[in-house]
This record gives sequence, structure tokens and C-alpha cells, in this order.
Amino acid sequence: MESNNVISFADKLIAAIEQKGTPCIVGLDPRFKDLPAAITQQCLDEYGETLTGITHSILRFNQQVIDIVSPYVPAVKPQIAFYEMYGPPGVQAYLETITYARQKGLLVIADVKRNDIGSTVAAYSNAFLGRVPFWNNQLKPVFNVDAVTVNPYLGSDGIQPFLDDCQKYGKGIFVLVKTSNPSSSEFQHLPVEGEAFYLHVARKCKAWGENIMGNQGFSSVGLVVGATFPQEAIQIRKLLPQALFLVPGFGFQGGKAEDMKHFFINGRGAIINSSRGIIHAYRQEPYARKYGEEQYQQAIAESLQTMIRQVDQILQ
Amino acid sequence: MESNNVISFADKLIAAIEQKGTPCIVGLDPRFKDLPAAITQQCLDEYGETLTGITHSILRFNQQVIDIVSPYVPAVKPQIAFYEMYGPPGVQAYLETITYARQKGLLVIADVKRNDIGSTVAAYSNAFLGRVPFWNNQLKPVFNVDAVTVNPYLGSDGIQPFLDDCQKYGKGIFVLVKTSNPSSSEFQHLPVEGEAFYLHVARKCKAWGENIMGNQGFSSVGLVVGATFPQEAIQIRKLLPQALFLVPGFGFQGGKAEDMKHFFINGRGAIINSSRGIIHAYRQEPYARKYGEEQYQQAIAESLQTMIRQVDQILQ
Repeated sequence: MESNNVISFADKLIAAIEQKGTPCIVGLDPRFKDLPAAITQQCLDEYGETLTGITHSILRFNQQVIDIVSPYVPAVKPQIAFYEMYGPPGVQAYLETITYARQKGLLVIADVKRNDIGSTVAAYSNAFLGRVPFWNNQLKPVFNVDAVTVNPYLGSDGIQPFLDDCQKYGKGIFVLVKTSNPSSSEFQHLPVEGEAFYLHVARKCKAWGENIMGNQGFSSVGLVVGATFPQEAIQIRKLLPQALFLVPGFGFQGGKAEDMKHFFINGRGAIINSSRGIIHAYRQEPYARKYGEEQYQQAIAESLQTMIRQVDQILQ
Repeated sequence: MESNNVISFADKLIAAIEQKGTPCIVGLDPRFKDLPAAITQQCLDEYGETLTGITHSILRFNQQVIDIVSPYVPAVKPQIAFYEMYGPPGVQAYLETITYARQKGLLVIADVKRNDIGSTVAAYSNAFLGRVPFWNNQLKPVFNVDAVTVNPYLGSDGIQPFLDDCQKYGKGIFVLVKTSNPSSSEFQHLPVEGEAFYLHVARKCKAWGENIMGNQGFSSVGLVVGATFPQEAIQIRKLLPQALFLVPGFGFQGGKAEDMKHFFINGRGAIINSSRGIIHAYRQEPYARKYGEEQYQQAIAESLQTMIRQVDQILQ
């Protein structure tokens, strides 16, 4: 497991994209109030109006979503905030969601945006990507995902422990470079030596990723580049042809299919994420009218097929 | 609880500093391998070589540390990475550590460095500072700490949900501005319009905090400014006389007592944190030789008194 023959995350992701035939991935960001009543009613009956009832509702919903999407997508991206908000049982639901997704053959990208000084980041990295010290210096995996999102603000020593675990265990990171939210420009676009700040972060990512190149020409140090900023994606892609882009913000946040081509290089090297637009599709038009909450599974399935088709047309 | 008469976090912190007579706080960053054998042996007997054994060891140790330090300091700062690394039971130990510290009259600053897009940050903010939606739109506190550390990279909309909860519930945030780690300069010192990047972040913090001013002249939007960078602290203090500084990196990371005066304004407005230097003092000189692991409690108590005295001398 710690040999030099470990397969790089980048190669695993590229292979999974080719196998499934799409770079679309699904964000597992379940909102309790938006869950189908059929599921919450079932858990209410079993667990009452308790925290356990909530976190089991979330887990059960996720398992159904994973059953629906796992034949079609290479990866899922569970956002930890929506689980951590329910405390330890919420984190338990997060862990079981990860386990279930991996059992179904999916790669799992934990959207955690963790960051800290080096000695603290080592704890995060060990927990999500590596191994954690137990009794008698035994090392055991805890969350054991394939990749995490990380925040670059503290510089190299807040990234290095992740790089070590990436190399050792065939894992990956996606560094926040240009985020999908409206105010991302406040700091990320500040001018530094004639260039936007985010491009300096992108250059650092290039350096961080140079020793973790896979055989398919991509590094396991990827970048988060928001779907809502295609012009910035062009700039970053010029600098980093060998970087994997994780592209959030498609659909619900406003990212458009026709812009997606800018995130790829020769049709490869990016994954496009939609969260609410897929998993809660039954609450949005046209699926709300067509299927309604009762047929939430059909709404999830159809919204995913629509997204896959849209992105596929762009890549043809 | 949601009335306008809520006491601001800034006022609560200033009052607690005055009551205890020191701005020193203790970081609860327990490393399992560094815990006293007396505690781990006890938990090994009770729970075996299990994850529960580890997380109970951590919790029991924390409770003893809190018993020792709570008469003397205004606040503790538990670093979540060292709990999250042990999965859901680790987060349970984190929650119980928070509860115990608050029962002992301490303010609790959750060192989580969370950050994300607005809708996701709302989940974090509700979990740590505010109230989380349960069944039937009931709102309940989950971690219920007094303040959190946050990362600014995503700009205002990744901060606003925290500001809302700060105002509503009398809570605070400390925004990473100039961090204590060696590589913090890589991005934080990039030149933007003739000024280091971190000063632009500091200015934003000023704007974010202007509507959450307490009666003592300080805002509940504080800043993280590393003890290892006193010159930068002078620059930031010029811009933000009304900001609370959370100053990590004292002791173990190299921050020196004589430099601490630069972080204050008229002897007020900063809290100085030491983590490993206090809680694992029995593993470091001169306490390791003087007390050894058996008398870990004396080592913790004496290292704290030394720190308090050093900082007090500077402030006289």
C-alpha cells in the first residue's frame, strides 16, 4: 500500500472519467428541509424527532442518490458542512456516505476546504487521505477518501502534509484558486505584479504538483476553478495544462454548459460538479412540475442525464 | 436570546480578560501520543485498544487541563483537527470538551478555520455560532462556542453568514490575516498596490466588523495575527485600533514575550495563545526534567503561570 507502485489519484480519476464516459460528478450536499417527505417520515417513525432521525434521513437519502448516480458518474463530492452542522452523528453520516460511495465504485472527493499550519494540517491530511496514529503506533485510515479540497491562504507548509499523503497513498487535492461565489474576486483578483492574485496561487499549485504527476499527463494536485468564471479558467489553463480542474457552480449557481469547454484541455482534465441541481432536482423546475417530490428518484436521474448530455455536447 | 440586548462577544472577552487579569489563553490541541500514560492506561483498561479508548483519553485529559487552567485564563481554543482526525468519536470528544470548558466559565474559541461559499458557510456558522434547523423548523445550537476562526480567501459572501450569527447571538470570529507559520508570507506578503496582501485582508476585516462593535470599543470581528510576526502586527494595529487580535504561535512556535506588546493597544485588545507549550509542558524542558510525565499536572500549571507572568511583565 505504501509502495512506489501506488496508482496516482490523477490516473485513477482520468480512468474513471473514461470508463463512465463523462466528466460530470455529483455533489452530495443534502439539506434536511429539502429531503423527500417519504424518507424523513420513515426515519421519524424509526427514531422520532431526534438528531439521529435527521442524520439517518440524510444518510438514507444519500444512499439512494448514490444508487441512482453511481452507474453514470466517476465521482461524488460530499460537502462536509452539511453533515458537521449536525455534530458527531452528522459526521458519522458523512463517514458512512463515503464508505457507501466507495463500495459502489465511486471516487470520493471530500469537499472540506481544510487549511492550517503544517503540524495541524498533518492531522487533517492523515484523517482524510492518510493514516492516523492509534494504539502502539498502529496507523489506520479514518475518512479514507480519494481527494480533498484545500485552502491555500497559509502557503506551502499548510499544503506539504497533504502532498506527502498524496504521494504515499495515491490520493489527490484540489486547491482553491478561483472560487465560484460572487465575492470571490475581492481577494482573488487583487493585482499583484500586473497579474491577478489567483494566478499566483495557480503558479504555486503547479510547483506543488510537479512531483505527483500521473502517467496520463495530469498532476494529483488539482485546482478548484468555479464554473461561473470561464474567462479566468482560460487564464489558468494557459499556465497549467497539466492540472486537473474541479469545477463547482454548474447549474444552480449559474455555470453554463457552453462555457465548460474552457476548463478542459483537449477535452480532458476537468470534472464538472452539480450539487443542488441534481440531488434536489425535484424542488426545481422543470422537474418539480414533471415529477414532484413523490418521484424524486426520477427527477434526480433525469436531471443528471440532462447535465451529462449538455456537457457531452460541448466536448464533442 | 435573539433580542437586541445581547452582549457582544467583544465585550464578553474584554470582561473575561479583566476578571482573570491576563490575556493568555490555552490551546487544547491534544496529541494522543503525548498524553500522560496514566490517562491512556486508565482508558485502555476501560475501553481496550479502541477508537473510543483514544477519544476518551483525549477528553479526560482535556477535562483535567481545563480544571487546572480555568481559574486563571479567560478562554480556551480547541483546535478541531486533533479531534476530527479520530472521526465521529473524535468530534464527540470535541463537543464534550467545549461543553466542559463552558461549564467551567471559560469562553471557547473553536479553532476551525472554516470557509466556503455563502450557502455552505451558513451551515458552518449555524453549527458553531448559531442555531441549526431540526424537525418542524425548530432551531437548536450544536457546538455552541463563543467564537470561531475563519479563512478569508472567498471574500465577503463567505463571511456574511458568520457576521449575521455574531450579531444575533453575541458571538465572534477571528479572521486569518497574518498567520504564525513560516510560509505564511508566500501569499500574505504579495505586494498589492504598494502594500502587502494581508493588509488588504485586514482592511476588509475592518469593514466587516464595523456594525458589530461592543461597548468597550472593540469589534466582534477579530483578526488572527501570528506571535511570530511582531512587525506585521504593528502595521495591522495601525489600521485597526478597534480589532481584537488572536495571537497564536507563542512559545512552542517561537513567539517571544517581549514582542507581545505590539499586538495590544494601550495594553488591551489581544489574546495570546499557547497550545503545546502548556498542555504538553511535561514533554519539554525545563518541565520534563523538573516534573516528568508523572507530575504532568504540575508541569501544566507551572508553564501556564510562567507564561502569564511573562506576558504580564510586558504589559506593565
